[in-house]
Amino acid sequence: MSEEVKTVIRSLAQRVKAAAAELAKASSARKDAALRTMADRIEANAAQLKAENARDIADGEAAGLSAALIDRLRLTDTRIAAMADGLRQVAALPDPVGAVISGTVRPNGLRITKVRVPIGVIAIIYESRPNVTADAAALCMKAGNGVVLRGGKEALRSNVAIWRVLQDALAATGLPADAIGLVETTDRAAVDALITADGLVDVVIPRGGEALIRRVAQGATVPVIKHYKGVCHVYVDASADLAMAEEIAFNAKCQRPGTCNAMETLLVHGAAAERFLPPMLGRLATAGVELRGCERTRQIVPDIKAATEEDWFAEYLDLILAVRVVASTEAAIEHIRRYGSNHSDAIVATDIREIEKFTQGVDSAAVYVNASTRFTDGYEFGMGAEIGISTDKIHARGPMGLEELTTYKFVVYGSGQLRQ
Amino acid sequence: MSEEVKTVIRSLAQRVKAAAAELAKASSARKDAALRTMADRIEANAAQLKAENARDIADGEAAGLSAALIDRLRLTDTRIAAMADGLRQVAALPDPVGAVISGTVRPNGLRITKVRVPIGVIAIIYESRPNVTADAAALCMKAGNGVVLRGGKEALRSNVAIWRVLQDALAATGLPADAIGLVETTDRAAVDALITADGLVDVVIPRGGEALIRRVAQGATVPVIKHYKGVCHVYVDASADLAMAEEIAFNAKCQRPGTCNAMETLLVHGAAAERFLPPMLGRLATAGVELRGCERTRQIVPDIKAATEEDWFAEYLDLILAVRVVASTEAAIEHIRRYGSNHSDAIVATDIREIEKFTQGVDSAAVYVNASTRFTDGYEFGMGAEIGISTDKIHARGPMGLEELTTYKFVVYGSGQLRQ
Repeated sequence: MSEEVKTVIRSLAQRVKAAAAELAKASSARKDAALRTMADRIEANAAQLKAENARDIADGEAAGLSAALIDRLRLTDTRIAAMADGLRQVAALPDPVGAVISGTVRPNGLRITKVRVPIGVIAIIYESRPNVTADAAALCMKAGNGVVLRGGKEALRSNVAIWRVLQDALAATGLPADAIGLVETTDRAAVDALITADGLVDVVIPRGGEALIRRVAQGATVPVIKHYKGVCHVYVDASADLAMAEEIAFNAKCQRPGTCNAMETLLVHGAAAERFLPPMLGRLATAGVELRGCERTRQIVPDIKAATEEDWFAEYLDLILAVRVVASTEAAIEHIRRYGSNHSDAIVATDIREIEKFTQGVDSAAVYVNASTRFTDGYEFGMGAEIGISTDKIHARGPMGLEELTTYKFVVYGSGQLRQ
Repeated sequence: MSEEVKTVIRSLAQRVKAAAAELAKASSARKDAALRTMADRIEANAAQLKAENARDIADGEAAGLSAALIDRLRLTDTRIAAMADGLRQVAALPDPVGAVISGTVRPNGLRITKVRVPIGVIAIIYESRPNVTADAAALCMKAGNGVVLRGGKEALRSNVAIWRVLQDALAATGLPADAIGLVETTDRAAVDALITADGLVDVVIPRGGEALIRRVAQGATVPVIKHYKGVCHVYVDASADLAMAEEIAFNAKCQRPGTCNAMETLLVHGAAAERFLPPMLGRLATAGVELRGCERTRQIVPDIKAATEEDWFAEYLDLILAVRVVASTEAAIEHIRRYGSNHSDAIVATDIREIEKFTQGVDSAAVYVNASTRFTDGYEFGMGAEIGISTDKIHARGPMGLEELTTYKFVVYGSGQLRQ
């Protein structure tokens, strides 16, 4: 059985690879036309998409999926409109393919140009939200890549229905439908086949929970770009404008606590703690945030739970906050290096010496000075879209937009140069 | 035993990681001073390095290593001088760390800068040449990274002797000696521990034969940048200047056949074959090249061996050449896509339509127009040095110099911005 699945997956990847070679040569105009056609057809086929989705939901309810999971799974008119809108937004973005990144002329006259090209075939492994099918396919396609999609099994009918619409739109625009592939089997062996398809798949991007990502990273022989968790910090320095610090910390925790760029731990310089913590923690508690403090925090604001070692490592993704008083910017950096996840961390300060220590010492994808960590996002960074937020340091770090879905090649022009 | 090795390796990687955090903040002046001190001390300690190397060689000879392997292992005065010279060359290169790659101001006033930073800890797994110890450590260090070196067991004493000199030079310059680590055990479990040290090692670069690279890629959970083989092609189009084509093909095959950027297969357009092949293959045969031709090639030049399907896939690294007549540029591209290794491929042509088909259709790290494939090299590309030639598409493609040993982070400056 596993061998059979492997054959099916390799054959799928082979078709996507062949189509990707065609797509790589397609003009921006044609790719954008395909994306707009996809958007129109997603809207035109809303009733059918909802019907297939209803079957997934019925099965999910019968299987006892949680209400939260059922909600993620559900396609509503609003969500379908948002999917179509997302496709049109991708169509409106500049095409990264073909840009000359740099160029030099060597002493021997060789002209070396570094040109942006598609990566090739990208595998996206994701969980329950069916809109990822359209979002991920659109971004990979716009950057000239073939894509193999592997969504959650509970969303299979919804995903297949969306995928068929996307393929039809490609074909209708004169592009190869096989450039967007989807794994139709729910056998988990399909994932193993996909992440070991060296020579057919160029990179795997797992989008989902930590267990999924670890499993992919461990089993893969193909390169993986991981999107792990965000244990994000706001550090309030002694030199901070405390009114600004309060607004930033409140925003970082409460504006959307379930996201990877929300604050999980608040660090406060000892010299600011007595003035800052009582109003700050009062406001957070009023907003429903459960607080877990270090010993010093609990001396200042006694009525909160004691934080344990696990709290410093925790990605709550919820209205829970760990709070620690630190002796210096160095101690804050040390805490972040030890417990953080190299995702997004902020300092609130006015003293440039402390700010420079922090921006140099914190090794995170995004380091903020006097702003909320919540801005780590492809849209907010001006990329126009994002496939995710890389917590790896290789290839792409932080928000990944269209450029991060490309690579480069060197095109070298000579007039008969020989190596001596 | 394996658990014990794992503990040793993780503890080593932990020390390197802590030192790397210090090194990341070091000035270019200090790093360059350390590199020059390393060079001076390598020269000053030549006698001791040769003595340790002699012990490796004696053991290798006793163990029956091949003459070729013994030669690779040997440290001569010339090779020691070259090592020192390499260190001084790295000192003279511009420091990539801290460069602002790009920057924007968002509508809300956030100033986003994308800043080049060290990757962190790089593991280099290599085979018998002891000079890699100095070369790889120097490049990683200059780019602000910690490095964990794991060389071939037959070169252990030589590697340890070089490494001690490098560490002493770091310490003498006020930099943390632990930024350069070396695995002193020859237990193969050490490699497994290194390539699964998530959170401690940021990337692994295996340098060596295909078996080593495959083993690392399969076992690793840490990202790997692979340096696989080069099955490089020269395609001679019907529009080619045939005199130029002959020089380029001869250079690509014969100038240094043992390198990954040497030509392994010559493709010739049918319309040029009768004029081009007899003098070309005659010259190659005279130079000692064994020829293996397709049917059409053997009709034109009868006295050569028939090429088999395996020949099209072969990386000979030797004076052997496969020769094929193709019907068109498209057929050449198709051959290269099927049998090539996406490393370096050249077209010799004057017709821009054929040239554009080739540069767009061939998906290799370096695509040449009217020049020898032998130029794929960090020095020839103006990078000043190279740690290797990536055949991956992720992070770095083709020659990897100092910039390719860095990543970036986003440093975002605000004035109290909150996410809405």
